Amino acid sequence: MILEFTKMHGLGNDFIIIDNLEDKRLNWSKLAENLCQRNTGIGADGLVLVNPSHNGDYKMVIYNSDGSLAQMCGNAIRCFGKYLYEKGYTKEEKLSIDTDSGVKILYLTVDNGVVQSVKVDMGSPIFQPELIPVNAPNSADIKIQVAQRELTITAISMGNPHAVIFVEDLKNYPVNELGPLIENHPLFPQKINVEFVQIKDDQTLAIRVWERGVGETQACGTGACAAFVASVLKGKVKFHGEVHLLGGILTITYDGNKVYKEGPAAFVFEGKVEIDSSYKLI
Amino acid sequence: MILEFTKMHGLGNDFIIIDNLEDKRLNWSKLAENLCQRNTGIGADGLVLVNPSHNGDYKMVIYNSDGSLAQMCGNAIRCFGKYLYEKGYTKEEKLSIDTDSGVKILYLTVDNGVVQSVKVDMGSPIFQPELIPVNAPNSADIKIQVAQRELTITAISMGNPHAVIFVEDLKNYPVNELGPLIENHPLFPQKINVEFVQIKDDQTLAIRVWERGVGETQACGTGACAAFVASVLKGKVKFHGEVHLLGGILTITYDGNKVYKEGPAAFVFEGKVEIDSSYKLI
Repeated sequence: MILEFTKMHGLGNDFIIIDNLEDKRLNWSKLAENLCQRNTGIGADGLVLVNPSHNGDYKMVIYNSDGSLAQMCGNAIRCFGKYLYEKGYTKEEKLSIDTDSGVKILYLTVDNGVVQSVKVDMGSPIFQPELIPVNAPNSADIKIQVAQRELTITAISMGNPHAVIFVEDLKNYPVNELGPLIENHPLFPQKINVEFVQIKDDQTLAIRVWERGVGETQACGTGACAAFVASVLKGKVKFHGEVHLLGGILTITYDGNKVYKEGPAAFVFEGKVEIDSSYKLI
Repeated sequence: MILEFTKMHGLGNDFIIIDNLEDKRLNWSKLAENLCQRNTGIGADGLVLVNPSHNGDYKMVIYNSDGSLAQMCGNAIRCFGKYLYEKGYTKEEKLSIDTDSGVKILYLTVDNGVVQSVKVDMGSPIFQPELIPVNAPNSADIKIQVAQRELTITAISMGNPHAVIFVEDLKNYPVNELGPLIENHPLFPQKINVEFVQIKDDQTLAIRVWERGVGETQACGTGACAAFVASVLKGKVKFHGEVHLLGGILTITYDGNKVYKEGPAAFVFEGKVEIDSSYKLI
């Protein structure tokens, strides 16, 4: 059978998007594994299905390139919002998207029928040490010793745990040396993602992210949110501004309660791929 | 404008193929650079154009993913042959394809309208030491010393220079240690590609290839030919057999004069990509 798909990316994180509103009854896990292969498949970081939902306008289902299910992905959901609007699935600029980690609210910025950016309600940051979790009496100004340095950390959970550290010279900062030492420090019982932050001005910060279990990455949406919230709390930036990551720019708003993350999504191409009957579920 | 393309691969070496019989007058070098990008483009090792030719049935033009022109590529030309036949450009099973390194003759094996494999006339091997080039009186049984080992080399040119070495345990052979030492040995004034060969039986050999200026690679067509010719000359295999590379299997025939290389090609998907007017030539 022939599968039609759309290739999109958000900050270089790329996805194969397939309409599955009428359940195609396919082995999507196996398909994701094969279609995501860069040389012999379509090539992507993940496979995203547009599924129907009772809880939101649509449901986004994401498979990683190894065939496993991902709960949610910030870069993918922006692509999802742009896809729905520009392909005519919706005329609304506010969408509720069901995911395996709950319903997410999307706000589209549309100009002349083209979605320029997508803002996602990221919920509220969590500061209680035991919920982050961090073994410290406060989540702010935690002192830790790694590699003969004393670092001052702000710990924040955005659904996943983050340690934010302000630095002077981000470009030359030893992220790859200190990242793993902080990630695995005994203060953090579930390990931790680490954001190294340099303040550029009162509405701009630059960050590099060490992702828990991964290493340094090009972009991390929840990391950008955590870094921005910590910067607001320290009085270093105003409530709305840009976070410059290696992979691109996200615009974050923190109103003292909720965090909103806004960024781009792009269409790459449209395609058709032939798949054999072994992918069909009986 | 919208560009239609086909994605194909030969032994995992993947290409975007575009019909340019009616000259689209585009900046293909710039397009190759952007369309070959894995995350933000279509993703491929190269961009292949189907151009008209006075010297052959069609001309194959290949751009590398960095935008530079490639003269010829064995994996690409098999894809090219399958593309021409199955897309209805030709009904012939013998094709002459013009390339920037001369006209190549292709023999298609077709079953039920499907091209199962493509055989390419690779020309004759060159054994004269000064033409390979190697600074030795003979091209066979050259002894060299590297890393406290004495190695016996057969030098052969297939248009590019190769050093073939027979080994007992290919899997555990120190290819990455010895490869660069042989490549840069003073015996080889233009450096050399190196094939480490283990004989499996009288019609099968396994090889690992150290490519000049690149390192160990998954597959090298001329390397497979050189390894097979050296094995025939040593009486280790018959005139026709399989060469097992890390990236797949090629079937080689050496009739004492010419070398023929046969292998697979595969369609991956069909696509349409929108490109902006900056790619148009004036």
